[in-house]
Amino acid sequence: MLARYFPILDWGRRYDGDKLSSDMMAAIIVTIMLIPQSLAYALLAGLPPVVGLYASILPLVAYAVFGTSRTLAVGPVAVVSLMTASAAGAVAAQGSPEYLTAAITLAALSGVMLAILGLLRLGFLANLLSHPVISGFITASGLLIATSQLKHILGVKAGGDNWPDMLGNLARDLPDTNPWTLALGTGATLFLFWVRKGLKPLLVRFGLKPRAADMTAKAGPVVAVAVTILLVLGLDLAAKGVKLVGAVPEGLPPFALPSFDTGLIAQLWVPALLISVIGFVESVSVAQTLAAKRRQRISPDQELIGLGAANIASAISGGYPVTGGFARSVVNFDAGAQTPAAGAFTAVGIALASLFLTPLLFNLPIATLAATIIVAVLSLVDLKTPKRLWIYSRADLSAHVVTIGVTLVKGVETGVIAGVLVGLLLYLWRASRPHAAIVGRVPETQHFRNVDRHKVLTVPHVLSIRIDENLSYLNARWLEEYVLERVAERPELRHVILMCSAVNAIDASALESLEAINHRLGDGGIRLHLSEVKGPVMDRLERSHFLDELTGRVFLSQDRAFSELVIDDGSEPPVQAADWARGMI
Amino acid sequence: MLARYFPILDWGRRYDGDKLSSDMMAAIIVTIMLIPQSLAYALLAGLPPVVGLYASILPLVAYAVFGTSRTLAVGPVAVVSLMTASAAGAVAAQGSPEYLTAAITLAALSGVMLAILGLLRLGFLANLLSHPVISGFITASGLLIATSQLKHILGVKAGGDNWPDMLGNLARDLPDTNPWTLALGTGATLFLFWVRKGLKPLLVRFGLKPRAADMTAKAGPVVAVAVTILLVLGLDLAAKGVKLVGAVPEGLPPFALPSFDTGLIAQLWVPALLISVIGFVESVSVAQTLAAKRRQRISPDQELIGLGAANIASAISGGYPVTGGFARSVVNFDAGAQTPAAGAFTAVGIALASLFLTPLLFNLPIATLAATIIVAVLSLVDLKTPKRLWIYSRADLSAHVVTIGVTLVKGVETGVIAGVLVGLLLYLWRASRPHAAIVGRVPETQHFRNVDRHKVLTVPHVLSIRIDENLSYLNARWLEEYVLERVAERPELRHVILMCSAVNAIDASALESLEAINHRLGDGGIRLHLSEVKGPVMDRLERSHFLDELTGRVFLSQDRAFSELVIDDGSEPPVQAADWARGMI
Repeated sequence: MLARYFPILDWGRRYDGDKLSSDMMAAIIVTIMLIPQSLAYALLAGLPPVVGLYASILPLVAYAVFGTSRTLAVGPVAVVSLMTASAAGAVAAQGSPEYLTAAITLAALSGVMLAILGLLRLGFLANLLSHPVISGFITASGLLIATSQLKHILGVKAGGDNWPDMLGNLARDLPDTNPWTLALGTGATLFLFWVRKGLKPLLVRFGLKPRAADMTAKAGPVVAVAVTILLVLGLDLAAKGVKLVGAVPEGLPPFALPSFDTGLIAQLWVPALLISVIGFVESVSVAQTLAAKRRQRISPDQELIGLGAANIASAISGGYPVTGGFARSVVNFDAGAQTPAAGAFTAVGIALASLFLTPLLFNLPIATLAATIIVAVLSLVDLKTPKRLWIYSRADLSAHVVTIGVTLVKGVETGVIAGVLVGLLLYLWRASRPHAAIVGRVPETQHFRNVDRHKVLTVPHVLSIRIDENLSYLNARWLEEYVLERVAERPELRHVILMCSAVNAIDASALESLEAINHRLGDGGIRLHLSEVKGPVMDRLERSHFLDELTGRVFLSQDRAFSELVIDDGSEPPVQAADWARGMI
Repeated sequence: MLARYFPILDWGRRYDGDKLSSDMMAAIIVTIMLIPQSLAYALLAGLPPVVGLYASILPLVAYAVFGTSRTLAVGPVAVVSLMTASAAGAVAAQGSPEYLTAAITLAALSGVMLAILGLLRLGFLANLLSHPVISGFITASGLLIATSQLKHILGVKAGGDNWPDMLGNLARDLPDTNPWTLALGTGATLFLFWVRKGLKPLLVRFGLKPRAADMTAKAGPVVAVAVTILLVLGLDLAAKGVKLVGAVPEGLPPFALPSFDTGLIAQLWVPALLISVIGFVESVSVAQTLAAKRRQRISPDQELIGLGAANIASAISGGYPVTGGFARSVVNFDAGAQTPAAGAFTAVGIALASLFLTPLLFNLPIATLAATIIVAVLSLVDLKTPKRLWIYSRADLSAHVVTIGVTLVKGVETGVIAGVLVGLLLYLWRASRPHAAIVGRVPETQHFRNVDRHKVLTVPHVLSIRIDENLSYLNARWLEEYVLERVAERPELRHVILMCSAVNAIDASALESLEAINHRLGDGGIRLHLSEVKGPVMDRLERSHFLDELTGRVFLSQDRAFSELVIDDGSEPPVQAADWARGMI
């Protein structure tokens, strides 16, 4: 029981020297990769770069205690940083103490929300984000993030939360471009692109193993950081207007507290909820992918608690919202991390860096960080999905396109909400008009098939309807309309059979509709029968009065229902239609 | 085509003398019943009584042109009147010209919304209100309405939108009770209750036919109105503090315009939408019930247009939101109305009444109108539903109870919204954890059943999973977890078969999950197979890359899949398990 909420008690008990050395190795590699990334994402969130380091220490320790994934690496990520910038920017000006307080408060709110969702086992709410909506949101976020960093490459001020604002401001500020910044930023971007695409094949050709080549290529940003710092020093670029990171406070993260101002919380809770859900969805899909590779399991509800703890830890150490990141988790996995202890060791590495390395970062150009962000996020932009969805499902495509469009034009929060609403609306629309078919007997068999698709036998006084969907309040009204319309077209009708082989549940609203159908058909002298009702559905129907009031019968099989009812055609004496009913003639 | 949007062109062409006399007869009866009801509901809406008459003239004509029900009677109804009072009361004080403007604007907004929903064929949105939510809302509204009228019976001021406010105000104002008003109001209430419950059997015993007795009993309110007017005159109750209707302007409805103030519209559009949806749901269920009795049909999307036209007509003639009412429609139906022309004739009746009868209403006590409301709405309170739901479905019961509770404590608008959200949340919760079963072969048959419920055959290296639900984004994540957990428990596994006989659709998110499952199982050396995939689902899968990547095969029948895969148990040579697989041993 205790081990359920503290997974560390489980894996910690079997920790040994082998695992220690694997975890240490992975931690060193991840630390090197994380330092420039953390600085860059803090910049993207509109925060001082050191906040990115703070958010990469205590949260990792908290996740190591509460998380269930063995290899997930928690910390600042691109999309959540963008969402933080958008939410904090709505309540305070970038650079002000209030802005930092807003970011810390977002982490605290998001941590508390995630932990509560986990304790109440409400992780299923994340299901409201469909894959097309998520991928649309990620694509649009990647485009927004890359665009937002262009100002740093150009060395201008242009801000904005969405494409129309950003592009307008960029066009306005273009004449102010600083040529040195532009040269440095463009150079760093091209270098990092080449590292990503061209370096690995080159290293392999020089005899490195593919995995080692991959890891080396991941260190590209560190090289870009070092080289551009040297360029700044050598060419005295600071005097030429190239913006630098400047003084980064040395030392461990300070103890911080979120704001308990109810007015601020009222403004931030919706973005905090969206950050929580998006962060959780990103994190849990990474964790599941990695766990499956080693046949391990994660617990989504406990993951909520782990991420909640990580965000609370971030808030009390002056950080901002964090989640499990894709790139760093893959590096951690590939570098051989065995347990969450690797995350704790990474935290030690980052803590050492913030104690001793920060003076070296004084001369780091902002443009270099912007270049690492641009190169990292363009891999988020996914141009294959729209085509795939066009072929597979237009409804899903429309949810995808709406999410991209609204996110680009209106910003991240409105984008996520629009995506969820469109997805839900399409789902409800489909659920409210399910598939149903009028069926008839395939000659000389006991099978019944759609009359529109197969050559089957029917009679004018018996109508068999197969419903291919659970009956719920969403389609209860449809069911009434569908059945009554079919009946209104058939004046000779005496029996209606609802074939329930695909009905797994009937809720109270649908039960009322069935009662209404039974009653209305009864008024018109038509009897209602059911066939092939599943066990659990039948158990439940027996607890209601419906079966007492049913004008017809419940048949175990559609075959039996049709064979018996075909005889009663209203003539006296009834036709001896048994042979006909069996499809023998 | 034109007849679709103007149903009058359809029935009007076949209109004849028989129908004319039936419709005239029905119109006279409904007119007599409608006059006190219209005055009373306007009072409930916090409006001058004459507004109730205005709302019963032009809307009926508009519905006769655009509506599809032959017998629906449109006009002010109790629940919509309460909602109007709540919405208009939030923006202006009762009795002020702004309050009347708000009510007219609500009718206009609601009319436009209904018409747009109808033209866009979005009637399915009304499905979001499940039967338990609607019945909870109606019950709570009945209680709120009855409580709101107690002040008129006591002759005190006490107002309020919800139970805590109403009961607190009543307790506070109780000492101000006017004894004459109390006596009159109590007397009228008891008389109307007796008319409802005791008069009909008495009339039948005196030889009246049950239907005629019923119609006579429906005239009870008219008698109460007449008697209490005479009492007021005879005992000079006006001087004793009994509140009267007072001067009612004579004449036809004035031409009115809703407000086009965007601030007011911003405040009123949510309540207007709720009024539209609640009104539509009430109206369409009445219309469907009555249409089915005569084997007629209504078109829900055209009904939206009909009700929209009725509300716009109400707005431009100084009325407030209207819809199809249950009580008056049943009277109309029972009185033999054949076509919507009966509604138009009723409109003429009401117009004559507002031209000539209004002076007679000067001495009508408000308490009499309150008594008619109380007796009418207590029939809305439904105490059987909770018990029925307790037995049939606890989830539906919780939606019902939440709706009642929130409506009573927080008022009608919050109540409806809470009901919709709870219903949706429960639905999504259920949809996100569908039923699935591990199945095995029933010995010596081709049937496969749940291993937990039946004695069936399985083998350790083949796992057959039957999914009893459509695969969508709501359960895609569940599917991954479910399959991977089952697999993690079974180290000897080589084949997983997903039996898709109950799967009617697979959306893009679920397809991605299937791809992920296929990929992850493949990483662990397990092949994924599908069996019994339905035709339309297969057509769609063939448009994706999934089938190319599938590690296993697609089998037409589960029987075939199991029989073939059971042979490949990883031993060399494979076991000759054909007989075993068929369940013969």
